[in-house]
Amino acid sequence: MKDAGGGKGLITLLTDFGLKDGYVGALKGVILSINPAATIIDLSHDISPQNILQGAHVLSQAAPFFPKDTIHVAVIDPGVGTSSRHPILVETSRYLFVGPDNGIFELVLQSEKVRRVIHLSNREFFLKDVSHTFHGRDIFAPVAAYLSLGVDPAGFGKKNGRIKKHRLERPRTNKGIITGTIIHIDRFGNIITNIQKDFIAPAKPGKFILKVGDRVIKKLVGTYGKAERGETVALIGSNGMLEIAKRDGSAALELASGPGQRVTVRILK
Amino acid sequence: MKDAGGGKGLITLLTDFGLKDGYVGALKGVILSINPAATIIDLSHDISPQNILQGAHVLSQAAPFFPKDTIHVAVIDPGVGTSSRHPILVETSRYLFVGPDNGIFELVLQSEKVRRVIHLSNREFFLKDVSHTFHGRDIFAPVAAYLSLGVDPAGFGKKNGRIKKHRLERPRTNKGIITGTIIHIDRFGNIITNIQKDFIAPAKPGKFILKVGDRVIKKLVGTYGKAERGETVALIGSNGMLEIAKRDGSAALELASGPGQRVTVRILK
Amino acid sequence: MKDAGGGKGLITLLTDFGLKDGYVGALKGVILSINPAATIIDLSHDISPQNILQGAHVLSQAAPFFPKDTIHVAVIDPGVGTSSRHPILVETSRYLFVGPDNGIFELVLQSEKVRRVIHLSNREFFLKDVSHTFHGRDIFAPVAAYLSLGVDPAGFGKKNGRIKKHRLERPRTNKGIITGTIIHIDRFGNIITNIQKDFIAPAKPGKFILKVGDRVIKKLVGTYGKAERGETVALIGSNGMLEIAKRDGSAALELASGPGQRVTVRILK
Repeated sequence: MKDAGGGKGLITLLTDFGLKDGYVGALKGVILSINPAATIIDLSHDISPQNILQGAHVLSQAAPFFPKDTIHVAVIDPGVGTSSRHPILVETSRYLFVGPDNGIFELVLQSEKVRRVIHLSNREFFLKDVSHTFHGRDIFAPVAAYLSLGVDPAGFGKKNGRIKKHRLERPRTNKGIITGTIIHIDRFGNIITNIQKDFIAPAKPGKFILKVGDRVIKKLVGTYGKAERGETVALIGSNGMLEIAKRDGSAALELASGPGQRVTVRILK
Repeated sequence: MKDAGGGKGLITLLTDFGLKDGYVGALKGVILSINPAATIIDLSHDISPQNILQGAHVLSQAAPFFPKDTIHVAVIDPGVGTSSRHPILVETSRYLFVGPDNGIFELVLQSEKVRRVIHLSNREFFLKDVSHTFHGRDIFAPVAAYLSLGVDPAGFGKKNGRIKKHRLERPRTNKGIITGTIIHIDRFGNIITNIQKDFIAPAKPGKFILKVGDRVIKKLVGTYGKAERGETVALIGSNGMLEIAKRDGSAALELASGPGQRVTVRILK
Repeated sequence: MKDAGGGKGLITLLTDFGLKDGYVGALKGVILSINPAATIIDLSHDISPQNILQGAHVLSQAAPFFPKDTIHVAVIDPGVGTSSRHPILVETSRYLFVGPDNGIFELVLQSEKVRRVIHLSNREFFLKDVSHTFHGRDIFAPVAAYLSLGVDPAGFGKKNGRIKKHRLERPRTNKGIITGTIIHIDRFGNIITNIQKDFIAPAKPGKFILKVGDRVIKKLVGTYGKAERGETVALIGSNGMLEIAKRDGSAALELASGPGQRVTVRILK
């Protein structure tokens, strides 16, 4: 299946299944039973259970680095087995995304050109017995495997044309104050916000004021190394988002911050 | 090695090694040194240290989804380096299983047709220096790699014909009461028992009484979504086993339950 | 890219990124975008944040089992974005190593023949925008991918000829007393020292005295199974290093020991 010019046959997996149970293994078995030549890459299986915002962030950070034609499967799916969310397939100019229509693709699609949205309904491409609780294994994995074999997206169900709007917050600017949200705490305790670097670009030294809870941070640096030991600073992280980091420590512990919390930034002239 | 019709060259790994040490990496290096074209898939490396029952469950849940001819290696091996357990190779009509003869294969083999059981003794297929403490790297990994190259199972040792009987408990029915055991707590706090759906199939709404410790659960649902928020219910999980789940919470924390605990079920007529 | 005689196209990854963020996924996406036929193997991503000694140990334990021509990428990089460490490429008679020049390769290179050390400076082989904080993705991953395509090491920068000396401690012998350091606590609570088996080889039963903190251990066994239940003993581990292990328990908890602590051994005649 491999093709030097792209990601044909390449499937990435993002779930909240963890690695201590057999769930991820079952997914891979299903894929390889349909397409033994597929290459499967784990993005993460350690998204906090049912945390769509965190999953959406991790997906948006990793997916864009993959080659054209990669199939990205994301299964953070608190509504599994209910009629409140549809299983979907989103085709963009670069990738195919497979998962529940619950907001998990909202961030990554901001930098993609969507071509088609298909509601997955053709049971021919599902496992024979679809359980109520494990659509990752029974629907999303086999659909991804058939896609990797070259089946046309149109074959998987009805073209719907749109994705449900979800409530993943975006930053906004009002009277010179940028208001954003903490979307992720990474392994190093760095606090990652949804404020892109474009919002911050005009900041000059000494002209930056960030507030989170009752804490104020005025130092915006180019790299961790520019902070003093133990100092908490703001910087543009490797994914182009505003982050708060503590040199040789955890900013999240220091500020007692977590996903969902509001952050405001004022840029002085 | 790849073959569109099956899992030739496909090796899965299940261990209790965790991922913070170099043990899993060493296993993969040994396999790829013998067969660079092998495809290696991790089932899990986060089985609790030396927990054979948990490993047996995860293996039985994931292995059956893999294509024919897949080689499944399982190394949860508290008796390593002692004479109390043999390294074995089990050939079934679909798969090859490699690991210690300590019960780790007992659950997965319930749905397989065993053809041959070989006691691994031919040192030609082991690493040159077999350590006392790491048979995963020194025996099981190289044996799996040579199997993936097509070496006949008979070459690895003496055909013994049987596997030791172990004490992994199976459910039993007595005077209308089904008695089973909790075999696993998954990442979401779901309590998974060893009671298969066939035992529960005749249950009608309102005719189901489950007891675990001093708690009674009477609600048997088809899917998590059918439980009220915060409610604890029974259901048949994605692997066909009776589970106890709490909507938007952890049933294991709620019931203070863990692997090994007894569960009884009564089905009223 | 695969070649039955070696590890051509095989890239291993060792980082302290953890698996809950998208960092590892991004690395893999970068590699596969440059060489879709690369085979990527995870050694570990759960090295404690910025713990170079632990990473060096895990690398030295797993890397030597990989086939010739394998490319080993290691990113434990507390100095990222500062001028205090160079990104390097080390070519040995068997492998290629890519990562920061901060001591991470010091242990693994003890058993390798170094041919060339290159300072990575040719930006043609980096991602277009090199961030200050994520050289794993922007420098080390693309360099490894181009190496896997067969680009000559000389093309990546200036041949420097030497690696910085770091302070990873080595054991020494003085007046019959061997002094070493604890370099790693593994998942099972085993205490792994930097004292190789050659130092211990002459020990006869009853002639071995190990001291760590205020505890003395006199029992040196061949395998865990030779210890009584609950007993704490010394043994040569699977990687040829002196270890302290507790049968059915954690030696590290028992002795309240951790990486960096001193261990002394006296061998009586």
